[in-house]
Amino acid sequence: MPATSMEELVSLCKRRGFIFQGSEIYGGLQGFYDYGPLGVELKNNIKAAWWRSNVYERDDMEGLDASIIMHRMVLRHSGHEATFSDPMVDNKKNNKRYRLDHLVKDQKADVQARVAELMGADPANFPAVVAALNASPAQASQALRDAGVRDPFSGEIGEWTEPKPFNMMFKTTIGPVADDDSYGYLRPETAQGIFTNFKNVVDSTSRRLPFGIAQIGKAFRNEITPRNFIFRVRELEQMEIEFFCVPGTDEQWHEHWLEKRLKWWEDQGVPRSKIEILDVPGEDLAHYSKRTYDLMYDYPTLGHEEIEGIANRSDYDLGSHTKAQGELGLVAKVEENSDSVAKLTIPHPDTNKPVVPFVIEPSAGVDRAMLAVLSEAFTKETLENGSERIVLKLKPHLAPIKVAVIPLARNKEEITSVAKAIKAELQGLGLGRVLYEDSGNIGKAYRRHDEVGTPFCVTVDFDTVGKGEDPSLVDTVTVRDRDTLKQDRVKISDLAGWIQARLR
Amino acid sequence: MPATSMEELVSLCKRRGFIFQGSEIYGGLQGFYDYGPLGVELKNNIKAAWWRSNVYERDDMEGLDASIIMHRMVLRHSGHEATFSDPMVDNKKNNKRYRLDHLVKDQKADVQARVAELMGADPANFPAVVAALNASPAQASQALRDAGVRDPFSGEIGEWTEPKPFNMMFKTTIGPVADDDSYGYLRPETAQGIFTNFKNVVDSTSRRLPFGIAQIGKAFRNEITPRNFIFRVRELEQMEIEFFCVPGTDEQWHEHWLEKRLKWWEDQGVPRSKIEILDVPGEDLAHYSKRTYDLMYDYPTLGHEEIEGIANRSDYDLGSHTKAQGELGLVAKVEENSDSVAKLTIPHPDTNKPVVPFVIEPSAGVDRAMLAVLSEAFTKETLENGSERIVLKLKPHLAPIKVAVIPLARNKEEITSVAKAIKAELQGLGLGRVLYEDSGNIGKAYRRHDEVGTPFCVTVDFDTVGKGEDPSLVDTVTVRDRDTLKQDRVKISDLAGWIQARLR
Repeated sequence: MPATSMEELVSLCKRRGFIFQGSEIYGGLQGFYDYGPLGVELKNNIKAAWWRSNVYERDDMEGLDASIIMHRMVLRHSGHEATFSDPMVDNKKNNKRYRLDHLVKDQKADVQARVAELMGADPANFPAVVAALNASPAQASQALRDAGVRDPFSGEIGEWTEPKPFNMMFKTTIGPVADDDSYGYLRPETAQGIFTNFKNVVDSTSRRLPFGIAQIGKAFRNEITPRNFIFRVRELEQMEIEFFCVPGTDEQWHEHWLEKRLKWWEDQGVPRSKIEILDVPGEDLAHYSKRTYDLMYDYPTLGHEEIEGIANRSDYDLGSHTKAQGELGLVAKVEENSDSVAKLTIPHPDTNKPVVPFVIEPSAGVDRAMLAVLSEAFTKETLENGSERIVLKLKPHLAPIKVAVIPLARNKEEITSVAKAIKAELQGLGLGRVLYEDSGNIGKAYRRHDEVGTPFCVTVDFDTVGKGEDPSLVDTVTVRDRDTLKQDRVKISDLAGWIQARLR
Repeated sequence: MPATSMEELVSLCKRRGFIFQGSEIYGGLQGFYDYGPLGVELKNNIKAAWWRSNVYERDDMEGLDASIIMHRMVLRHSGHEATFSDPMVDNKKNNKRYRLDHLVKDQKADVQARVAELMGADPANFPAVVAALNASPAQASQALRDAGVRDPFSGEIGEWTEPKPFNMMFKTTIGPVADDDSYGYLRPETAQGIFTNFKNVVDSTSRRLPFGIAQIGKAFRNEITPRNFIFRVRELEQMEIEFFCVPGTDEQWHEHWLEKRLKWWEDQGVPRSKIEILDVPGEDLAHYSKRTYDLMYDYPTLGHEEIEGIANRSDYDLGSHTKAQGELGLVAKVEENSDSVAKLTIPHPDTNKPVVPFVIEPSAGVDRAMLAVLSEAFTKETLENGSERIVLKLKPHLAPIKVAVIPLARNKEEITSVAKAIKAELQGLGLGRVLYEDSGNIGKAYRRHDEVGTPFCVTVDFDTVGKGEDPSLVDTVTVRDRDTLKQDRVKISDLAGWIQARLR
């Protein structure tokens, strides 16, 4: 039984050290989160699983790690300077600014319906309502007032301005002089670092089509209204692939990646049954996209929201960043580029003539992945004795702590030394984090490790060291299974193999 | 024989896909680099080795991954708003701006000597010359002109202004409204995210003193003159530990960490003999430091430069970020803080009274580590047959590619299918990247894998599949050792164990 509300996840994450509000001791910074001791392990495990599946286990993929701050020309020619914006409205009464679609979505149903009616749009089709508001700014301002749209901050009906676009990129001055040329952007997506390095990667690896470039890294979006915990944040982490293929094979590859990615989510404990595939309608497609599948995961409280987008970006991006655009027979409509110094082509595998490949882009969010994985793993169950427990049934490869080794007595050197030796041995297997855990009594330790998803707890007790009642238990330990609660007595000499077999 | 010049490293890094200039297709962005297919693996391997040694293999460490953009109050109370600056001078002739110390260091010896003389400083003591220039700005401006200090851009003697401090933090507007309150900073060091989360980590893990928090992540410094490849960059990556201990035990822990860190560098192939330990003199200490050891690695071309700093930060940082400073008996001199909402104390292990711990900070740069590791591994050697080869003798755990599996014929399905099966099996061992390599002839493949440091090349040939001359070689492959060049014939069924034993 997965989580039923966002609140229970948020509470667990804070309590157990998965996720904290950013800059919390100064009142917090909206849209920024810090990953605590367990969060960093879970996050790293998700990223490693993605890298393994998409880079290591394929024969047609290279990795990349490009810089976060990029030349303004990159984001100009990518189209982000012109189009990476959200329409916003201000409330003249208190000078608060809101993202238009969020503002309308936050209103009561009757207010939303009145806005739709005033704009002549179908109230059941929310994107159409937003599109109508954007299309007629003056009418929109009037409609928001007449419909009685309330300010979420003050609770009062606002004096709304016309919607205006607001660019969501973070900008910063580079170098000592702040003039018109001396700025760059924090990348709003990792993708652009892949496109700008296309030629570098081809030249240094001799790749031929089809092949992909994969990257994991931070991206930054100055969201007007960050919300829903780590779902919509200003500093996020992405796992993106740009898969380059011969034009004409792109639709096949699009389907290939849809299947591959659904399989991957399943392997992380996020079942297909919880993901709706949205074939994004033409009018909602991003400027670069020929076709896009959005994977919509059923988040607790939020409902179906995007966890990954798989876009057919055609030859738009390489075509936008290349020089000599006119010679290349581009399919996508691109803006003129007289700034690029590189021709972004690769020999066609059949004809050997230079071609600008098409691109399939599976783009997933690390933070949203974490939220989905936590949500699926979250389980509240009633035990046989009637007591209740919370347990995170994470796949073992994702668990932040693989094994906790617990000395039954914290101050008995004969016990702690055996526990420490076991910890060191299991740690040496390279499975991930193994914790030496002497911070409380055994019952509390078990409850804590249930809540953080530790697959096995190993307890060293008096019997282990020959000071107990049963001499047959010397040199054995108790291993407790997170999910079944079964306790096995295992010989120390067999323990490494026993654990390894169960964690794969 | 390690690298003898930076140029040969830069050339290898570009050619083989370790490191590219950032935003290169738009002329490049100074101080930003992108890590290519091999660079990202090497970087990830260095980070994993650090995390394993400092988090997994210890029982007194927690991990963290805080956000890059931080509340301005964090950087105000850390002291960075006031002191994280470099003195700069402008050349009025062409409005170019330079970092004072870099400008002077770039002059010919006789010009440097004249500057020193005019400022009444010892020419052999460069820091003293810079200090003198900063202490008397008007006199400094005159001295730079009189000594004939040349502009590195124009080559002409400049009309130099007085030195002025320039804050090196990147600033950006957060949220839709650009007003005086709506900005944050890109963190100039990962350390501050650790201090601001001190209480969160203590509360969620029940840690007692002594213990540490470790973090790996990007940091940003708006260097006026980035230089020396990835040595001095504007976007860097750090591996930092803040180790919290009982005041009075800090000096012991400082020595502990010095030893531990030297040992770690040795394990990465950077020997102690190449690192000088600089006990930073009092007048050069950072504002927060009680004592600092700088580990100065002997880089090719650059000479001894900092690869890691190990600072005793006393109770300065937690003392600066805590509320109720007056009650806590702080040792460090801190600025008043009326913005923090948290008391950053922990019970003293003996008395149980709240105490602000002292902090030892081992702080290493990932990029500088990569440069040192590459430099040490770089080897040019003359083979028995008189030919020369470049080989990267990387420690196996750092090698970007662990094994290359090479089918001797690219289009023979019987050979490629065996090679692919071997690749999949070895990949499954979880040792890191295993490459299926069919991009050229075998000689070229060996040379490439020498240059990128692949410990083993496995070749599948006609004998392997029973189509060769020697029937005794069926189901065996050739394994070539990077360092010894020895070629062994190994049974496919033994191969996984054979490789595993040698890569540990």
